[in-house]
Amino acid sequence: MATKNLVLSQLTGKKTYTEIVFKQVWGKVETYQAAHPQQKIFMMAFGDTTQPLPPTVVRALVDAANRLGDPKTYTGYEDITGNSELRQAICANYYREKLGVELESAEVFISDGAQSATVNIQELFAPDNIVAIQNPAYPSFVEGTSLAGRFLVNLCCQEENNFVPKPPEQKVDLIYLCFPNNPTGTVATLEQLKAFVDYARNNQAVIIFDAVYNAFMTTPNIPRSIYEIEGAKECAIEIGSFSKMANFTGLRVGWCVIPNVLTINDTVPGELNHLWRTRNAIKFWGTTNVAQQGAIAVLSAAGQKECQEQVNYYLQNARLLRNGLEAKGLKCFGAIDSPFVWIETPQDLSSWEFFDKLLYSTGIVGVPGCVFGSGGEGYLRLSALGQRDEINAAVKILVDSLPEPEQWQC
Amino acid sequence: MATKNLVLSQLTGKKTYTEIVFKQVWGKVETYQAAHPQQKIFMMAFGDTTQPLPPTVVRALVDAANRLGDPKTYTGYEDITGNSELRQAICANYYREKLGVELESAEVFISDGAQSATVNIQELFAPDNIVAIQNPAYPSFVEGTSLAGRFLVNLCCQEENNFVPKPPEQKVDLIYLCFPNNPTGTVATLEQLKAFVDYARNNQAVIIFDAVYNAFMTTPNIPRSIYEIEGAKECAIEIGSFSKMANFTGLRVGWCVIPNVLTINDTVPGELNHLWRTRNAIKFWGTTNVAQQGAIAVLSAAGQKECQEQVNYYLQNARLLRNGLEAKGLKCFGAIDSPFVWIETPQDLSSWEFFDKLLYSTGIVGVPGCVFGSGGEGYLRLSALGQRDEINAAVKILVDSLPEPEQWQC
Repeated sequence: MATKNLVLSQLTGKKTYTEIVFKQVWGKVETYQAAHPQQKIFMMAFGDTTQPLPPTVVRALVDAANRLGDPKTYTGYEDITGNSELRQAICANYYREKLGVELESAEVFISDGAQSATVNIQELFAPDNIVAIQNPAYPSFVEGTSLAGRFLVNLCCQEENNFVPKPPEQKVDLIYLCFPNNPTGTVATLEQLKAFVDYARNNQAVIIFDAVYNAFMTTPNIPRSIYEIEGAKECAIEIGSFSKMANFTGLRVGWCVIPNVLTINDTVPGELNHLWRTRNAIKFWGTTNVAQQGAIAVLSAAGQKECQEQVNYYLQNARLLRNGLEAKGLKCFGAIDSPFVWIETPQDLSSWEFFDKLLYSTGIVGVPGCVFGSGGEGYLRLSALGQRDEINAAVKILVDSLPEPEQWQC
Repeated sequence: MATKNLVLSQLTGKKTYTEIVFKQVWGKVETYQAAHPQQKIFMMAFGDTTQPLPPTVVRALVDAANRLGDPKTYTGYEDITGNSELRQAICANYYREKLGVELESAEVFISDGAQSATVNIQELFAPDNIVAIQNPAYPSFVEGTSLAGRFLVNLCCQEENNFVPKPPEQKVDLIYLCFPNNPTGTVATLEQLKAFVDYARNNQAVIIFDAVYNAFMTTPNIPRSIYEIEGAKECAIEIGSFSKMANFTGLRVGWCVIPNVLTINDTVPGELNHLWRTRNAIKFWGTTNVAQQGAIAVLSAAGQKECQEQVNYYLQNARLLRNGLEAKGLKCFGAIDSPFVWIETPQDLSSWEFFDKLLYSTGIVGVPGCVFGSGGEGYLRLSALGQRDEINAAVKILVDSLPEPEQWQC
């Protein structure tokens, strides 16, 4: 008999992150707005980009579109693993020049953004693998692990450890690490990452390193790639994306590195890389060719400069926002190496209570920290990926209207 | 212990369709070309498009790129289920106007082409579901079923049944149907499709209907959508794509219809649609926004006209090619409702033997039918999605150089 997929249907009664953010948060905003139609809403919940694509990138997209309209330059299917020029640019202009990391272009797979790659990569591994995930974390790690029916181990990230966990005490098989972290905005030192690489090598575990926000890093001497740690190629897959570094959220271009020397127990060098290639040839035929041409332009000298200016703009937003919050006595994290401010709720308010207080006193909308896992309870995330005038207006209303912490009551 | 995923690693020693086409076929071509450097190669293996995007579509892509470069019109993340204007255009301009089929836009999900949707849709169903697939068939149906570890039932497509199978005699849970068929180029009548719809409704089975080539249909009174069959919404998912109807192979835009009234045993109306929405929110965040704007333009009045002219061009290619082959006494199918010609090998040659003969006598490269499954043995597929001058030159060399069938020897 046809029965519905039990793993998928487990989710029937649950809400995914996007449903919570788009429905629950949005529902509260609509209720508030209906009662206060004159109040301006500052939407700082979504980690969505707002700056226009820089000129170098737009030109590349327009050129690519025009070439598709010309019989002399039209091309059909792109290489399933991604445009080879783009893969080479990621190796040369990004990993080698910026990070001093050597990779071959055959080790880089172009994806339709980090979202699908971070979750689908689990298909490389055995169904009974145990997965360790930071808590709080970007929710798709947990949701994808649940969908795959795998057992989950929490790596607790709290203020006491500066939101950087230690490797698990028990044996796990897969470890998701995200630095600069979403949602906490914190980074891990070389020593902290080395502990994970050592753990992975000693335990035949694989690290899935989400480096999507690394263009935002300003703290010196912090690794931007897991491959800056010696031995990491033997045990780590890295996920990158153009979404936040180049305002590509709607264009859908990311990448995934599977080094040839990466092996687990019974695999030979190159085998995992080959299996992923095989999987993609069956289940994924690459992301839009025009968007990949845009990504090539991002990695040009001009494109990098223009995109970094936009990243700096967001970082300045984040600092203005954090300064405003701190001026009101709120304890904040992030905003130094990340576009997110991670606010500790005052007076032991719950995440949702603080969400309501902030909304009703200032019109500012964040994401309650508990949405990112139990470890996020007692926090709230604000995204600074907005327009500067919005940020300035939000900071002004924060300073003018937000009660001092000692005056907050549940 | 971390062990590699057994299902994925089953594929380690096997070659996927793309590997066969890109390596095995290509390897033979290289060997031939090295021995005959003066001989022109006619590459008719890949079902890849070659005509430039029409002006209406290029304009839409260029406009979309420019809008992303303007702070007043920049947008970030697209709706995960796809641009709402595009989903509405698929319902109104495509299903309603062209086919007389009524759908709600919430029943339509935009995908990154048909490839991923046809395979990933299996995630909606229980792991022990039995899958019926036409033999021969587009290889991803079989490969995706193998990856999911599901049992497979062959629906034999032979000349005797005009390559349209009857519903299976045993109980199955999922049925892949592709019409106009790739690789055989044949279509199914309303009565033949009704038999499958009746079977599915009587057996709580779900049809996954691949309609990717339906813009090529010219035979009158043949359904272009499974939903033209009464009751099909209760039992069928339909997969569409802009790849072949609008030369979008590199742009990656398709769609997937999951009607709200589609249920299986223990599901309620809307539940499968909702589960797919949930799945996509975790594992897929949509295809490139710029490409979706191009797809909207395809469905405009001007876009439809321009794209249909290109489809007609390919169809004329196919007829020229089939005529040339038939003039040499070869038995051919397809080319009437499809850009593919499906050639029966003469003198009982195997698919690969005929592949070699054709290559070495004319320089024409096809795909051996056996690559599409055991039912394709004794056939060869040629794609007519090329340039007219190439087709004309290929037909000329066919007529001039291909031996008459009675002269063929293994």
